[in-house]
Amino acid sequence: MAQQERAVRTRRAVLEAAAAVFAERGYAAATIVEIHSRAKVTKGALYFHFDSKAALAQGVLEAQISTEYRLPRELKLQEWVDAGMTLAARLPREPMLLAGVRLSADLQGRSIFGSAWPAWTELTTCFLAEAKARGEVLPHVVPERTAEVFLGAWIGVQFVSQAVSAWADLELRMSELFDHVLPAIAAPAVLVRLNTSPDRGSRVLAEAAAAAEAGAGPGAGV
Amino acid sequence: MAQQERAVRTRRAVLEAAAAVFAERGYAAATIVEIHSRAKVTKGALYFHFDSKAALAQGVLEAQISTEYRLPRELKLQEWVDAGMTLAARLPREPMLLAGVRLSADLQGRSIFGSAWPAWTELTTCFLAEAKARGEVLPHVVPERTAEVFLGAWIGVQFVSQAVSAWADLELRMSELFDHVLPAIAAPAVLVRLNTSPDRGSRVLAEAAAAAEAGAGPGAGV
Repeated sequence: MAQQERAVRTRRAVLEAAAAVFAERGYAAATIVEIHSRAKVTKGALYFHFDSKAALAQGVLEAQISTEYRLPRELKLQEWVDAGMTLAARLPREPMLLAGVRLSADLQGRSIFGSAWPAWTELTTCFLAEAKARGEVLPHVVPERTAEVFLGAWIGVQFVSQAVSAWADLELRMSELFDHVLPAIAAPAVLVRLNTSPDRGSRVLAEAAAAAEAGAGPGAGV
Repeated sequence: MAQQERAVRTRRAVLEAAAAVFAERGYAAATIVEIHSRAKVTKGALYFHFDSKAALAQGVLEAQISTEYRLPRELKLQEWVDAGMTLAARLPREPMLLAGVRLSADLQGRSIFGSAWPAWTELTTCFLAEAKARGEVLPHVVPERTAEVFLGAWIGVQFVSQAVSAWADLELRMSELFDHVLPAIAAPAVLVRLNTSPDRGSRVLAEAAAAAEAGAGPGAGV
């Protein structure tokens, strides 16, 4: 049992080191040597968990979507906004997410190790389909198509924010993106109740942390 | 006069060759040798017009915004949509535009040669400010901020289209992007009159070509 726990920890350390190296250098320039020495594990330990650089990249991409910060809300669309805004708040400081963005945008590499784009699109599609079933979304909206548009828009907004401010204005830009897309999809009565303020992400993260600390697990916030 | 005309032609040939090479290889891997041999001019002729690779990249970026396909419309917002949709139609087949997209997204290079992003943002800002002055745009819209959101969204949608379809679905994705952004900014009575169909760009290009052929110059189409 202790051995199993150690293996889980080693795997996580290797993945985090891989994410940091991929985020800094990109896939092509990353080396196994740098990853295992940064993870402070032997080459053998690394290869026990991941048999190639491509497998490491796949592991990083699979670790993108986490539910740890997802708090249930009265409106499903608010949950979608919260997912986007917490992502914007976390991205600049989490190498795992930065690596996911960079690997997914690697046009040469994605045929080797895939991309997180389908998982992100599926997540948005689920939120929107459920919101639609509840009547929060306008009848003409096709969740899959809106999810595709939003994926592209989010990738570009993120990229421009990186280029002009090293992500310092990412939360503001994400907030403005939601403000420009929601009127096309949300029912009017729902639209006015959505909170898309730039600090929404960090507030939700603080709320989730407080709930976790209280030992209560995710509660039904507003 | 003939000499001046030849100089203009040489400069254009060099710029087009530079665009093709930048679009294919990116700035770092492009060489002056490949550019002048592709342009079928001497190295001396190239240096007469552009004294460095950075100057070539700047020249390509300055050539991005062309007004040749801009036809006046009754609605200023339609002119903005037309600018976006004709860009989507032209991009996949025009190395000058592909090079502009690639150079502008070069995070290492843009400190050396700049970016076309400010020019694109300014163009959108102008369209939206004029549309707002005419009452076509909702009162709360800030043209500069919408232009920033749209720049990011357009860059990302273009990038996803490149990654998944080599730009084959760019017009469809651009049409869907406009459909997702316009409801947030257009006055309702204007919104229903805007044409954002995926074939809008190629139709406008055909119309502009016909007008040019008729020797009438850009006419006031609908």
